[in-house]
Amino acid sequence: MTDFFKGIAPLQFDPASSELAFRHYDADEVVLGKRMEDHLRFAAAWWHSFAWPGGDPFGGQTFERPWFGDTMDLARLKADVAFEMFDILNVPFFCWHDADIRPEGASFAESRRNFEEIVDYIIGKMEGSKTKLLWGTANLFSHRRFMAGAATNPDPDIFAWSAATVKSCLDATQKMGGQNYVLWGGREGYETLLNTDLKRERQQAGRFLQMVVEYKHKIGFKGAILVEPKPQEPSKHQYDFDVATVYGFLKEFGLEGEVQMNIEQGHAILAGHSFEHELALAASLGIFGSIDMNRNDYQSGWDTDQFPNNVPEVALTYYEVLKAGGFTTGGTNFDAKLRRQSLDPVDLIAGHAGAMDVCARGLKAAAAMLEDGTLEAMRAERYAGWDSAEAQAMLTGDLAGAAARVEAEGLDPQPRSGRQEILENIVNRFV
Amino acid sequence: MTDFFKGIAPLQFDPASSELAFRHYDADEVVLGKRMEDHLRFAAAWWHSFAWPGGDPFGGQTFERPWFGDTMDLARLKADVAFEMFDILNVPFFCWHDADIRPEGASFAESRRNFEEIVDYIIGKMEGSKTKLLWGTANLFSHRRFMAGAATNPDPDIFAWSAATVKSCLDATQKMGGQNYVLWGGREGYETLLNTDLKRERQQAGRFLQMVVEYKHKIGFKGAILVEPKPQEPSKHQYDFDVATVYGFLKEFGLEGEVQMNIEQGHAILAGHSFEHELALAASLGIFGSIDMNRNDYQSGWDTDQFPNNVPEVALTYYEVLKAGGFTTGGTNFDAKLRRQSLDPVDLIAGHAGAMDVCARGLKAAAAMLEDGTLEAMRAERYAGWDSAEAQAMLTGDLAGAAARVEAEGLDPQPRSGRQEILENIVNRFV
Amino acid sequence: MTDFFKGIAPLQFDPASSELAFRHYDADEVVLGKRMEDHLRFAAAWWHSFAWPGGDPFGGQTFERPWFGDTMDLARLKADVAFEMFDILNVPFFCWHDADIRPEGASFAESRRNFEEIVDYIIGKMEGSKTKLLWGTANLFSHRRFMAGAATNPDPDIFAWSAATVKSCLDATQKMGGQNYVLWGGREGYETLLNTDLKRERQQAGRFLQMVVEYKHKIGFKGAILVEPKPQEPSKHQYDFDVATVYGFLKEFGLEGEVQMNIEQGHAILAGHSFEHELALAASLGIFGSIDMNRNDYQSGWDTDQFPNNVPEVALTYYEVLKAGGFTTGGTNFDAKLRRQSLDPVDLIAGHAGAMDVCARGLKAAAAMLEDGTLEAMRAERYAGWDSAEAQAMLTGDLAGAAARVEAEGLDPQPRSGRQEILENIVNRFV
Amino acid sequence: MTDFFKGIAPLQFDPASSELAFRHYDADEVVLGKRMEDHLRFAAAWWHSFAWPGGDPFGGQTFERPWFGDTMDLARLKADVAFEMFDILNVPFFCWHDADIRPEGASFAESRRNFEEIVDYIIGKMEGSKTKLLWGTANLFSHRRFMAGAATNPDPDIFAWSAATVKSCLDATQKMGGQNYVLWGGREGYETLLNTDLKRERQQAGRFLQMVVEYKHKIGFKGAILVEPKPQEPSKHQYDFDVATVYGFLKEFGLEGEVQMNIEQGHAILAGHSFEHELALAASLGIFGSIDMNRNDYQSGWDTDQFPNNVPEVALTYYEVLKAGGFTTGGTNFDAKLRRQSLDPVDLIAGHAGAMDVCARGLKAAAAMLEDGTLEAMRAERYAGWDSAEAQAMLTGDLAGAAARVEAEGLDPQPRSGRQEILENIVNRFV
Ligand SMILES: [Co+2]
Ligand SMILES: [Co+2]
Ligand SMILES: [Co+2]
Ligand SMILES: [Co+2]
Ligand SMILES: [Co+2]
Ligand SMILES: [Co+2]
Ligand SMILES: [Co+2]
Ligand SMILES: [Co+2]
Repeated sequence: MTDFFKGIAPLQFDPASSELAFRHYDADEVVLGKRMEDHLRFAAAWWHSFAWPGGDPFGGQTFERPWFGDTMDLARLKADVAFEMFDILNVPFFCWHDADIRPEGASFAESRRNFEEIVDYIIGKMEGSKTKLLWGTANLFSHRRFMAGAATNPDPDIFAWSAATVKSCLDATQKMGGQNYVLWGGREGYETLLNTDLKRERQQAGRFLQMVVEYKHKIGFKGAILVEPKPQEPSKHQYDFDVATVYGFLKEFGLEGEVQMNIEQGHAILAGHSFEHELALAASLGIFGSIDMNRNDYQSGWDTDQFPNNVPEVALTYYEVLKAGGFTTGGTNFDAKLRRQSLDPVDLIAGHAGAMDVCARGLKAAAAMLEDGTLEAMRAERYAGWDSAEAQAMLTGDLAGAAARVEAEGLDPQPRSGRQEILENIVNRFV
Repeated sequence: MTDFFKGIAPLQFDPASSELAFRHYDADEVVLGKRMEDHLRFAAAWWHSFAWPGGDPFGGQTFERPWFGDTMDLARLKADVAFEMFDILNVPFFCWHDADIRPEGASFAESRRNFEEIVDYIIGKMEGSKTKLLWGTANLFSHRRFMAGAATNPDPDIFAWSAATVKSCLDATQKMGGQNYVLWGGREGYETLLNTDLKRERQQAGRFLQMVVEYKHKIGFKGAILVEPKPQEPSKHQYDFDVATVYGFLKEFGLEGEVQMNIEQGHAILAGHSFEHELALAASLGIFGSIDMNRNDYQSGWDTDQFPNNVPEVALTYYEVLKAGGFTTGGTNFDAKLRRQSLDPVDLIAGHAGAMDVCARGLKAAAAMLEDGTLEAMRAERYAGWDSAEAQAMLTGDLAGAAARVEAEGLDPQPRSGRQEILENIVNRFV
Repeated sequence: MTDFFKGIAPLQFDPASSELAFRHYDADEVVLGKRMEDHLRFAAAWWHSFAWPGGDPFGGQTFERPWFGDTMDLARLKADVAFEMFDILNVPFFCWHDADIRPEGASFAESRRNFEEIVDYIIGKMEGSKTKLLWGTANLFSHRRFMAGAATNPDPDIFAWSAATVKSCLDATQKMGGQNYVLWGGREGYETLLNTDLKRERQQAGRFLQMVVEYKHKIGFKGAILVEPKPQEPSKHQYDFDVATVYGFLKEFGLEGEVQMNIEQGHAILAGHSFEHELALAASLGIFGSIDMNRNDYQSGWDTDQFPNNVPEVALTYYEVLKAGGFTTGGTNFDAKLRRQSLDPVDLIAGHAGAMDVCARGLKAAAAMLEDGTLEAMRAERYAGWDSAEAQAMLTGDLAGAAARVEAEGLDPQPRSGRQEILENIVNRFV
Repeated sequence: MTDFFKGIAPLQFDPASSELAFRHYDADEVVLGKRMEDHLRFAAAWWHSFAWPGGDPFGGQTFERPWFGDTMDLARLKADVAFEMFDILNVPFFCWHDADIRPEGASFAESRRNFEEIVDYIIGKMEGSKTKLLWGTANLFSHRRFMAGAATNPDPDIFAWSAATVKSCLDATQKMGGQNYVLWGGREGYETLLNTDLKRERQQAGRFLQMVVEYKHKIGFKGAILVEPKPQEPSKHQYDFDVATVYGFLKEFGLEGEVQMNIEQGHAILAGHSFEHELALAASLGIFGSIDMNRNDYQSGWDTDQFPNNVPEVALTYYEVLKAGGFTTGGTNFDAKLRRQSLDPVDLIAGHAGAMDVCARGLKAAAAMLEDGTLEAMRAERYAGWDSAEAQAMLTGDLAGAAARVEAEGLDPQPRSGRQEILENIVNRFV
């Protein structure tokens, strides 16, 4: 037991507490026939919680953590503290990048050995914990070797390095019983088209993703392969811009049955979408997988990765998740970082706990909206005209046939109210 | 001859002129082995030039045109003036929506009859003119019946109305010898997800586009079917968000060999892209078709549809067009409107003439960059590592194979300068 | 009694109702020692509710109101319906532009006569109603004569026209017992700097505002003069960009004691601010006046003027209002329009009723946060170091004196947690 | 002589060169009666050129510079290389933050001693160089002690630290003959209003700036005090949002005659303005000082600090500078960083050289536009109506008087074309 979280006991569900506690999240509460824990499937992220030093483009490290440094001992200390946080929060899952959990070595081989050793150490920790691995992923963007891309790098040796990294991360994910493997291509894009062969780079990215999927099957990994879209930052333009873009990419490379989406609210916003749009689109295309439940600041033009705090927004999120059938291998990952001024250990606990409560409120509101049924009834009623055989026949007919009805029947269709304000009022009954 | 442009003679190429003239656009100048007119294939747009009254969300009509009104006589006067402008500008092409050229009737049948009559009148005008039809399109967004969509409307009768409208517009486009037919789905999206069945609406849109393509083949229309992407406005979210989104949509509905893109600079910007990105992406996916060469104001969050005026930006546009092989059926359409304070007939001529000069400068700069070859040589050199057989073999191999090389060969790839500033300096030698 | 709202009875406070009712807004409920009606001081806006036809840049009128048209009879009918809505909603206030309530005449004199006649008609309506005038304002932006500005127009005759318009509007506001007079300068800005004498135009605007203030005193108008900032739209740049800009403008023209702010959430967002920022800044500068409680869509780059629907955001709004001492002459105006697809009379009622409920929830949450006191205690504690005499002395001393302490005392100040997540969690206990 | 720039000779003006050279910037060329060097007054920035390691929020150091590290020897090496770059570029000025040029010490006193020592070293370098100091400034944002602000910090000891830092930087600026002193308040703002006493912080900031001005006079510093506005980043909101905001701030604290603006293009864009807007506004308010000539990427929502590369934009910049009378103490600083992939020493030279050429082209175009006079004549003509005595009298009269004319004279003012497209065409003759 480290003393990092000294004085902070595991959080209890206690709506009336004046201390640090869950006011809304009760893991065992049954919502729509399922425990909240099984609905929400919360995961904490190693990177933002334990590896990020608090820097921004105009300032350096603000956090002073006893595990900061590059030794294996410190990596183990970090893992010890991480599992202490998982216990305090009672989160069923966690996530990692390779670079979060192991010190970088002087060579690939040394990095890999460090990684394998710490993976075993974490597996040991998992044996004494309820917390499982939601997903692993490879950091192919922080080191300067990746500055011009990983799979899309102009240098084929970096493609090889990336392949080797993903291979070892996928192996480790399988070994740890991970339920998914995620690819986020922060550098798979460009800074300027002037030095970029966009077509070639997209082909490299497509082939790389095919190779990952092939390898998954080869080793018998049963989890899902997830791609996390983001439009830009760090790149000026990233090939995995948004859900619609990735869908086209998957179709182009024959991967639409193999790969699903890990959708982050902040990235949706950067791409000019609402989060619920991205979720609804992914669900409608059959590629919905998992979510990163961290918001952006609407006034900031970059990825702020903040814990969620707006219940009405979160309710719409889980409304789409529930309509999509809920998570299977996916879950609710907090890819969220503390504000860099939130220096204290208790901030880390409070950030997660507040977010978990917000998600619990959102889930319960979403469930209530579904059970109430008014929203879906009004939606169905709006499209009821399409339920007639004649209307459906029009869709299987031809343009001239559809057109002929207009004059033949003297059609003069009148618009009907979209009732947006009424629908928003109905949502507000539940949030 | 109307007197609308009284005193304005057809523009001449006269670099030294102190009057209204082309300073850079000489239709007959040969660039890269082709006349500039044949490269640029300029088109003027009926809508913005002759039908838009100058309104904005906070103010009404500013233009007072003698042809404003709803009679056939006024529609013919408008056509007369349009062709006078085409002659003054010597543009080889024009474009229309049905609603631009004919008065709305009291019924579909009356609107169609108005339309067919004015189409014949315009065909008569074309016989005395060099100006041809680049593309026709249907206005399925202005009338209140389309407020909730055309093909994606909850009311199947509006789907039928839209089918009938596109049928008549495609028939007219063919009759007028049009080289393309464009679909822009300004209302094919939603205001709020709360009242929207996104999956159903996308299916309707997909089927509609298939029906259009089938009808094209049925009537033997030889032109291209083009979709014009736009992320939003008027809708909060539009299904044809950007080139990548439309590509996925075409793949989903089996249309990727049938449909190409009409890409507008302003829409690229609204979607968070540079224009050259959208062009390069479309070319790399084999779906590049035509362009709407009108810019947005970078400080305004809506579609300002301004004439292009920045030569360095336009040079990068034509650089991508030339690299894509140039236009075949497509061209450079000015989907641009005067600022609403630009009341005078001469403003309409000057807006187009300035834009044509800017495009001519851009094209010549792009051609010079290609002929110089430095940019492409530097790009090729950056990826030269991939030209080896070993690197190519890696792409056809598997993940483990690619990975194995890293440790076996002790790879330690070093980043190389991306040389962005140098490349930008090279571009600046030509613009 | 018109039949426009036929079947819609005045709304009751009935939290358990399944019909149209207030679930949270009880005008007589006492919050922090004051009735909610007296806290919130709701106002309905004539323009968006009764005059806006539902157009957007890509489509025309969607609403079909029996009072649309240009006769005095229709203007009276519109007023009748307006007061019926005020009664149904039980709103204590309304607001108008001159152009909302009277038909435009063929000359200024005719417009003025129309205006004066309808003002008297409305005064008659007010006598039978509880609803008072929160503010009047002049529409100096819709007519084409204002396309290049009102007070800032290059044509001095339009300055005169604007003066005459404001004079008659201020006279009418006084006659109707209005509590404020608002100026919003939608065209007081520019489309392009190339044709703009920015210095001259700002001087014209400053002198105009001085003249308005002088006239207010001359006629003994007791209400407040309010300026409503907006950064752009319809202009590319508007001189009243945001609260900070207007403050500088008031200081420049010696008006900071005479003019206060009418702050709109949507305009705050367009200017890159949160609404609470603009409120807190205005309060700190002593120029807080009134609010337009209508939101923008965060994904749309223009002014969507939607009814508020997010309780956590609205709670932060009223938290700032309460900290500023609450409204005096000001109030909560819904400068909000229905979505253009919301065609039905009930939509108009539901839009306002939902917004009033959201505001009531926000107010009650804000009051509870203030009564709880934790937020303010934590804020005060954060700055407690400044409460020492030594710290205060430093502010009245000089730079060298402040500097000298650092080495003399060997200062090594350590950062302390900003506790943002904890504070956000506290807010979430109340919303 | 270090070997960092080995093989790179001082750049020559040689338009026909195929090597690294100035194609447009000839320091001695006379434009509008003044040498270009004296017009443009180029400065290189120590921070971006020599101290920035190439990091971004998703990746660390990419540059490997021999002077990276924390010793005085390395600081001297950095200075040696800096002056070698100044010589190669023939720039007349440079700029620094204290933290750029000296290693941070373990205490304030040690940092100060390091600073004073390196200041003397740089003064020695200056004696052998033509390059002078344009401005010095204090870095009050990178170290974690400033995470919650410098002058606006909740901790008065950090106010004291900031005072001591600015005092030593202003002393050093004076000692080095600097022509200006700049304050940029990257952390003078907030992350969340919830923990912020906005009024108190603004008062602290105002008093701090007064103290700086008082100290300037006390020590007899003859240069200008400049404030550099920026709306956000690193803070969510920064008190020095834009020129208009700072103007109000200066008025509030009685500093408008004492402080001028250092305006950066990228910051203008982040604030929703064009660069030329900020310049024109500052000039019209009498607070124009100097410029940071580095652009943002319009598609990226953060401060990219790129070298300028768009001649038409830069021409409009210098058009405003020339209209404002040109620089006095100010100049053209490149507060620009290489892209993080531009690893080579030659990139640093090329980035600056390309920018200097772009500025030279912009200046010459701006001068030509002024000499041509058409733009200014058209502007003056547009406002000519205001030149009559009657129009001017209206401005000194009262509202009722201005109003009375409208009906008395039967005014019916007609809008005139704003001629934006024609004006843009005229600009394009020169760029
Ligand atoms: Co993120
Ligand atoms: Co994420
Ligand atoms: Co457009
Ligand atoms: Co277009
Ligand atoms: Co508004
Ligand atoms: Co408003
Ligand atoms: Co900057
Ligand atoms: Co700067």
